Order: sequence, then structure tokens, then C-alpha cells
Amino acid sequence: MKNDIQLQNLVVALDAMGGDFGPVVTVPASLQALSLYPKLRLLLVGNPDAIVPILEASKSIGLDRLTVIPSKSVIRGDVRPAQAIRVSKDTSMRVALELIKSGHAQACVSAGNTGALMGLSKLVLKSVHGIERPALTTLLPHQKQGKTVILDLGANISCDGSMLVQFAIMGAVLSEQILGVSNPRVALLNIGSEETKGLDNIRHASKVLHTISSIHYVGYIEANDLLMGKTDVLVCDGFIGNITLKTMEGVIRVILSTLQSSGKKNKLNWYMKIINFWIKKYLFNQFSQFNPDCYNGAHLVGLRNTVIKSHGAANQRAFIAAIAQAMHSVEREVPEKISHQLSVVLSKNNH
Amino acid sequence: MKNDIQLQNLVVALDAMGGDFGPVVTVPASLQALSLYPKLRLLLVGNPDAIVPILEASKSIGLDRLTVIPSKSVIRGDVRPAQAIRVSKDTSMRVALELIKSGHAQACVSAGNTGALMGLSKLVLKSVHGIERPALTTLLPHQKQGKTVILDLGANISCDGSMLVQFAIMGAVLSEQILGVSNPRVALLNIGSEETKGLDNIRHASKVLHTISSIHYVGYIEANDLLMGKTDVLVCDGFIGNITLKTMEGVIRVILSTLQSSGKKNKLNWYMKIINFWIKKYLFNQFSQFNPDCYNGAHLVGLRNTVIKSHGAANQRAFIAAIAQAMHSVEREVPEKISHQLSVVLSKNNH
Repeated sequence: MKNDIQLQNLVVALDAMGGDFGPVVTVPASLQALSLYPKLRLLLVGNPDAIVPILEASKSIGLDRLTVIPSKSVIRGDVRPAQAIRVSKDTSMRVALELIKSGHAQACVSAGNTGALMGLSKLVLKSVHGIERPALTTLLPHQKQGKTVILDLGANISCDGSMLVQFAIMGAVLSEQILGVSNPRVALLNIGSEETKGLDNIRHASKVLHTISSIHYVGYIEANDLLMGKTDVLVCDGFIGNITLKTMEGVIRVILSTLQSSGKKNKLNWYMKIINFWIKKYLFNQFSQFNPDCYNGAHLVGLRNTVIKSHGAANQRAFIAAIAQAMHSVEREVPEKISHQLSVVLSKNNH
Repeated sequence: MKNDIQLQNLVVALDAMGGDFGPVVTVPASLQALSLYPKLRLLLVGNPDAIVPILEASKSIGLDRLTVIPSKSVIRGDVRPAQAIRVSKDTSMRVALELIKSGHAQACVSAGNTGALMGLSKLVLKSVHGIERPALTTLLPHQKQGKTVILDLGANISCDGSMLVQFAIMGAVLSEQILGVSNPRVALLNIGSEETKGLDNIRHASKVLHTISSIHYVGYIEANDLLMGKTDVLVCDGFIGNITLKTMEGVIRVILSTLQSSGKKNKLNWYMKIINFWIKKYLFNQFSQFNPDCYNGAHLVGLRNTVIKSHGAANQRAFIAAIAQAMHSVEREVPEKISHQLSVVLSKNNH
């Protein structure tokens, strides 16, 4: 991944206090990211008392490219977003976002409260014209060597039909701009392929999408086709998206852990040990792309700047992946391209 | 599985026309089920013109235990349930359900329209006292050698809090009566573990479940913990349940098919071929329990009789599994036990 990042002086603001583990994960991950990416500069926002001791114990290179920005408090994971936003002044998440607004950083990464990050990002950075609410999205590898853009993953737990339509437009832009898919197929996640199936908001979105000529809408897709490569963009509300992605992750993790424990339980003879080793090696290669640690980092799309939401339970490796994703987004000017494409799609659709 | 079924003269009514493939799958599956289970009698409901030629071409044993019951029409998969029910007279699904009501059959199996099956079952067979709407449920194998009862899987695509509470009670009864789990843990599927997370209906159900002393309620569980064995009963609305189960199935199928195709693409040398063979053998053994074909057949619980919904796309093997599940349910008197336990739980809770 190191060679992919070519920008000069790319500045990312990190919410060092967010997530289940806070500085214990974010600080070592920051140091490792700095040693991996020589052009990266990090603004580490949080409680200096929690951050500095970990930094001082380290002999990492790149410390000169790291600045600790003090903040007074943290938005807890279990607080309601609306309440969290009201008292967000001087929290690590808000300070990190303000650093973008003031021009000190180009992107922000946080593993904190998803709803609060969404609300604060919209409040501080504003959303792109034409977008009601930003969405969380990730690129899901599929069986046909490509990737499916899936959104929303939890930023908006309930969505009306018009929000789903906006997600579809953003997803199509992402697929085209980031993955280079021309005329990407767009589908709605549903519990059946017939038009009469599903919830009201989904059926409404389907009707509207049929009328947008610049969107290559292919209809409903069921969850068992998620990894089959039948669509380039998959749209759902944030509750469903979160459940879907976590189900997938859970199944993959169970498979990997079943394999890891399989050799320990049984006394294997030598050739079974060899076979066991190969099985594990083979599977890790086959399915590493589905390992949540590797694709951690969900884009909050529809904003004027890059904001990446890391898993709350992200480990060090996963948090580095989220930092790298922020760098890629800035490098590829994702927010600007979304804004441009949206204005084109929306203006076409209004005529 | 053959030896598990010990009942004398167990009569199952089959909707032979339902599902994506109709008689092409249901008739051969019926014949195979008859040869597997000597005590089974089948009432095959459908269009004789479609069924009889397949029967006549067969030389199966057990044909004397099969009766074709003519029906005039079929409920299509893409029809709205309410509309389907209005014009359901003489459809294969309705005739099959009426055979239970008239005492000619003890259970019904259909791969047809889920919503219509739910509505018609409730209309024809009635639900157990205290249950607003029946739910679809299945037993999901988990990592700790046990099984989790998951419901609803699609009978009710939107549910209020009190319906989720009823599902929780039914799930606990199933876990206790069918799986022998004493004081089963009950959880709600949600997008976070904190009480403030999720949709209104889930939060409402959580509050109520905390007050029911006879239910061992353990709170919210996230989808990535689905197979971890952290709960014996997992409750969600039918839309979420359908998406969750199908996501899981899709991932498992992709893994199995990736494995099956892996040896074909590459020219492998002899030892890699052996390793490849072992990998497949190992994995099929490890994950066969998660293969949807093996656990096909979702119980429609909360009714006074046994109704099993087979996957619409079920193949022959899967349809046989659904027939076997119907036999087990009758043998173990599942509907009667649910009814009894519910009355106990509800009466306790009212005092």
C-alpha cells in the first residue's frame, strides 16, 4: 500500500480518543502509519495525558510529523447523537473536524460514535449540494474480481425513499470515479426481486430510480447475491447496511477462527498437520480480501471533505487501513468529484 | 435422518405448485421422501396435468402412500399477500392448508409466496392465543456446538415492539422444548449493544423484555456475533431476519463455490491437487451445517398446527429437508408445546 500514496504533505486529523480502545490503539497505529507513509502528517487530537506517555515510550521514526492537539473531552459510544452534538465543544471528534474547516487538515479519521460523527461532520463541514444526509459507504470485494460500493452502512438508521435515491446517485459516482466502472449497475437491497416486495421506502426509491436515465438501475437484489458481482452499487438504509456488513464479517471471522483452532483441538499426525497448514494458508489468501481488518474505514460520502469512520472495535492494523483510506480519498479528490458528478446528474434530471 | 422419524402414519400436505420450480422439484422430492420415510404419507396438492406425468415416469416405491389432490390455480410469488389471499380459493397453497383443518393432514409444506402462506395459515388454522402474528423461524448452528433459534425470517416485514416481545417468548419456548436448553438466553438483534442504539420498536421491546422475569433476556446482540453462540434465541423483524439469513447463506455459498472452482482454473501439480482435495473435503465437513440446503425449512410458529415454509429456490434435497422438518415438528408436538408454554408465560406475566 505504501507505494500507492504519492501526495506531498498530506495532513490527516485523527480523533485519538474515539473507538472502543482510544489511544491504546490509535497512537501506536498513528506511529506505524507515519513510518509507512513518509508524506503523511498527523494531527492527533485528544487528551495529552493519555497520548504523550505512549508517544514518549516510543522510538518511532516520524514523530516530527505528528502534532498533538489537546481536546478536553470525548463523545462516548453510547450517547445519543443529538445529545452528543449539543455538548460537542472541545471533544476530540469535533476538534478534529474543525481542523479541516480551518484549513489545517485535509481529512479526518474517527472510530467514535457513528451518529455523532455523521451529525458533526454535516454541521462543521456541510454536505454537498443536493444531498439531504451523508452516507457511510465501503467497497466490498465480490466474486467476479471487482468491488461493489455499498451504502448506507449505519449513518442513517432509517431512510425515506428520496434518501435512498440520493445514495444511489452517490454510489454510482463513487463506482465510476474511484473504481473506474463505466455506467455502473445500481441495485436496491430487498427481500425479493419482484417490484411488490419489501418496505415502502424501497419500493418508492425503485419507482424513482426507474425514471432517472443517467442511472443504470437494475432493480432489487437479495442479500444472498451480495458477493456475486451482480451489481456495482448496492443501496440500503443504514440499519440494514450495518446488519448486512456485520453478518458478513461475523461469518468470515467464524470461518477463519474455526480454521485456526482446528489443529489445536485434535492430535494430528504429521501429514494432517501439513494439510492443515496448507488449508489455513490457502484460505487466508482466498478470503483475506473479506477480512474486515483489511477494508476497515468507511467513507462518509456526501460531505465537502473526506471523513473516514473506522470500526469502533478496530485494531491497530485496521486503524492504519482507515488512515490510508483517508489519504487515498484526498489524493483522488473524491469529495470534489462526487460534488461535480452530483450537480451533473441532478441538473440533467431536472430538465 | 431416516431413523429419527418414528411416527406411524404421518400425513403431510404439500403445496406441489409453490416455489420457483413447482412440480419439477416438489414431485421428485416427494417420491424420495416417501422412499426415505416409510411411515410418511403425502397429499400432493396441485395441477394433476403437471404432477401425474412426472409420477408416471417414476418407478419409485411408496407411490401407494401418495395421493394427488387437485387444485385449480397457484399463488404466484410476486403477488401481494393481501391480494393473493382474497382470491386464494382452490389454490394449491390454500387447499393444502385446508387439508389440515379438515383433519386429513397433520402438517403442511409450501415453497410458495411467504406473505400469502403466513396470512392464509393464520386465516385457515388460527394462531395460538396471545400471538398477534405468527413468525418464521429456523435453527441456526453456531460456533459453540449448539443452535440459535432465530425469528422472524420474513413472515412480518415490519414489526412493532410488542410483536418482537411475542417472538422472544415463542423463541424461548422453541429453544427449551426443541433443543432442550434450560433457561435459554434471549437477545434482540441490533446495530450496537447500548440501550440507546437502534430503531424505536427494538428499544421498546428491550424495555418490556427486561420486565418479564420468566425470560432470560441478555440485551442486544450485533450481527457479527450471530454465529458465536452468545444467545439461544435471536429476535428481529422479518425484513432484517430475511436479509441476515440470506447474507449468511450468500457468504457460505461463495466460499464453497470459490473452493469448487479453485482447482479448475489453475494447472495444479499432483501434491497441490491432493491438498486441494483435502481442503474441499475438510471445508465441506466443517461448514456443511451452514449449507442452506441442509437447514431449509423454516417453521411458521405461533399457529395451532405445523406449517413449514421451504425456500422458494429450494432444490430437491432442500425440499426433502423441509418435509423432514414438518415430520419432526408433528412428532415432537411443537405447536401444542408452544401453546402450552405461552399460556404459562403470559399468565405469569399478567399477575
